[in-house]
Amino acid sequence: MSVKITSKEQVNDLLDKYDYFLFDCDGVLWLGDHLLPSIPETLSLLKEKNKQVIFVTNNSTKSRNDYLKKFEKLGINNVTKQEIFGSSYASAIYIEKILKLPKDKKIWVLGEKGIEQELKELGYTTIGGTDPDLTSNGTPFDLNDPRFSNLDNDVGCVLCGLLFDVNYLKLSLTLQYLLKDNKTIPFIATNIDSTFPTNGKLLIGAGSIIETVSFASSRQPDAICGKPNQSMMNSIKADFPKLGENPRRGLMIGDRLNTDMKFGRDGNLDTLLVLTGIETEENVKQLNANEAPTYFINKLGDFYEFNQ
Amino acid sequence: MSVKITSKEQVNDLLDKYDYFLFDCDGVLWLGDHLLPSIPETLSLLKEKNKQVIFVTNNSTKSRNDYLKKFEKLGINNVTKQEIFGSSYASAIYIEKILKLPKDKKIWVLGEKGIEQELKELGYTTIGGTDPDLTSNGTPFDLNDPRFSNLDNDVGCVLCGLLFDVNYLKLSLTLQYLLKDNKTIPFIATNIDSTFPTNGKLLIGAGSIIETVSFASSRQPDAICGKPNQSMMNSIKADFPKLGENPRRGLMIGDRLNTDMKFGRDGNLDTLLVLTGIETEENVKQLNANEAPTYFINKLGDFYEFNQ
Repeated sequence: MSVKITSKEQVNDLLDKYDYFLFDCDGVLWLGDHLLPSIPETLSLLKEKNKQVIFVTNNSTKSRNDYLKKFEKLGINNVTKQEIFGSSYASAIYIEKILKLPKDKKIWVLGEKGIEQELKELGYTTIGGTDPDLTSNGTPFDLNDPRFSNLDNDVGCVLCGLLFDVNYLKLSLTLQYLLKDNKTIPFIATNIDSTFPTNGKLLIGAGSIIETVSFASSRQPDAICGKPNQSMMNSIKADFPKLGENPRRGLMIGDRLNTDMKFGRDGNLDTLLVLTGIETEENVKQLNANEAPTYFINKLGDFYEFNQ
Repeated sequence: MSVKITSKEQVNDLLDKYDYFLFDCDGVLWLGDHLLPSIPETLSLLKEKNKQVIFVTNNSTKSRNDYLKKFEKLGINNVTKQEIFGSSYASAIYIEKILKLPKDKKIWVLGEKGIEQELKELGYTTIGGTDPDLTSNGTPFDLNDPRFSNLDNDVGCVLCGLLFDVNYLKLSLTLQYLLKDNKTIPFIATNIDSTFPTNGKLLIGAGSIIETVSFASSRQPDAICGKPNQSMMNSIKADFPKLGENPRRGLMIGDRLNTDMKFGRDGNLDTLLVLTGIETEENVKQLNANEAPTYFINKLGDFYEFNQ
């Protein structure tokens, strides 16, 4: 049974009990482009108490630098790059620290600039991705495109995520690398969210695009770096070894049961559900013990407001 | 145990036993752009004997008129449009005769011109498809595209097949129609081949593109009109009612066990495997009774050559 956080005393107990506060972003800190109440103040409170905050998002189109700009644009100025874990960064860390891909190997990217930037920061060379030669410009696809016969033998990893400039050439070239060398080149997915919620509509998500190359190659990704998959948690723990040693000192905060709460629970962290996203109090009260978050709260800003 | 056809007498027995000869095209009549030996002569022989020939292909990018041009280009001049069953035509027939979609309903197409042409010939109006406003021209995708909020309420069917000009806008608009009206708009697939073999490479097939919108919408196609699915066979039988009444008078000829032979067998037709495609005699001899074709033959042209 989840405990509802409704008082200053309960908040202070949480502040005593946890050192690492992991946050989902959309639905917790903001809704689309609208900041939720008392968020900068809550983050300041946590920092004053020397808590480590970590922002965890599945959107791979943005790099951490892009996210920093979004935080600043919304008036959250006390966040640093080291605190942001996007699935693009998590994938890059996974490739470096878990897969241990040598830096002289190239990474074929089916995705956006966010992925390329994070890989580049770790010293990797990418091909594919946002290469303008692969962008659709109105020219019909050429079945005899010579690039299908000129694959780069230095490619040691295929990393796939969401991309808006998806086209047949990029998909089919990705397929060539997934089939190459008897399907032995590692196949990494930033995340497998089936949809990308935007302006109240469900658009195509990373997972649905990855399904295309997965089905065509008869391969499943070797690792999925987004929530709720634990590759992302492992990347976070690799960056914060003390959290890895003692996950019970971490609290995962989010608005979704099947991604955020599962992500925290599977990583042996306690969990806090906020009701500013898609879940309601009635739903939370009906959950069985396996699904129920450790705690729930009306909104994250109550951390600050209860202390006034 | 499959019977190998090696003599004039055996060929003549087949000509007595069957009235309908269904052919896969690539690997049976031609390999890519190369005609196989004695094909026009074999087709002439069948026509002289008043046999009904039916060409069955899963490639939905071409209409029957496009296929006629391909036959003519390869020097096969004795084929008529009524003898060609592409998955685009099979889908159109399915929508008209099985689904019985009223002609005042529109069909949202994720696919190429072949599909649009076949639907138009039956009197349907299509939207989506090759509409130039949906083609990628280098302009970045707009998350606020007003078309996501302006769906056409006259759409009564979504038909998806292979397309080379695939992009995020088309995929996401297709998703809107699959989600619309509580997911009740029928979802038809021309075929679900995972790959599209071209010039010795495997490119992305219709089935892999359809996986994207299927995964995003959590829907499976209500009907699949290509081999080996029986929706295509049902469309053929709807066009040739006597074959439907007595499928044992039909012989399905192809080069693939898991599509062509399964397609014929599941439709209660006898089957003939040719060895000009991907299968070998050794493989055929090792098949158990459930998988084995009724007959096999070195090449289709032997029908003619044994009679010389």
